[in-house]
Amino acid sequence: MCAHIPYPADIYTILSTTMSAPEAHKYEFDVKMTCSGCSGAIDRVLKKLKDVPEPTVQDYTVDLDKQLVNVTGTIPYEDLLAKIKKTGKEVRSGKTIQ
Amino acid sequence: MCAHIPYPADIYTILSTTMSAPEAHKYEFDVKMTCSGCSGAIDRVLKKLKDVPEPTVQDYTVDLDKQLVNVTGTIPYEDLLAKIKKTGKEVRSGKTIQ
Repeated sequence: MCAHIPYPADIYTILSTTMSAPEAHKYEFDVKMTCSGCSGAIDRVLKKLKDVPEPTVQDYTVDLDKQLVNVTGTIPYEDLLAKIKKTGKEVRSGKTIQ
Repeated sequence: MCAHIPYPADIYTILSTTMSAPEAHKYEFDVKMTCSGCSGAIDRVLKKLKDVPEPTVQDYTVDLDKQLVNVTGTIPYEDLLAKIKKTGKEVRSGKTIQ
């Protein structure tokens, strides 16, 4: 009787599966923004999630004209929505695109 | 040898001392707000701290013209500052008035 001892190749497979980075998603939010001060506030909040050693937001755009905030990141949708809501801005709608 | 057993009057004193509400303070923040959307965002964040069963903010005003946010509440200064900063608005300065 002998237990299966994984070969190095098996270990590599296990590690790469369990330790791989979480998948990034694309999100879109319709946010009421009436001036550059409004969009600037959203920008600053997202910048804080992006410009850190282990960012949960990889990229984003804040479009005042279209009233749209687009985000690409590993951050879960609900966490991102909560962050945007904490700006006090009215979030009309939000969705996961990809 | 007999331990001191508090009289009802003593118990009342103990309870009223240990269970009294925390003292309310007055705070003032100079916040960059460029439109009613900006001041409305601050208003919504403070409203959430006021309109709850056990509010930590008792009263507040948001003055767009003067760029001032005045708050009366039991909330500690640092907690309130953190809440306002999460709006993404630039807080130029803040102080405890009373």
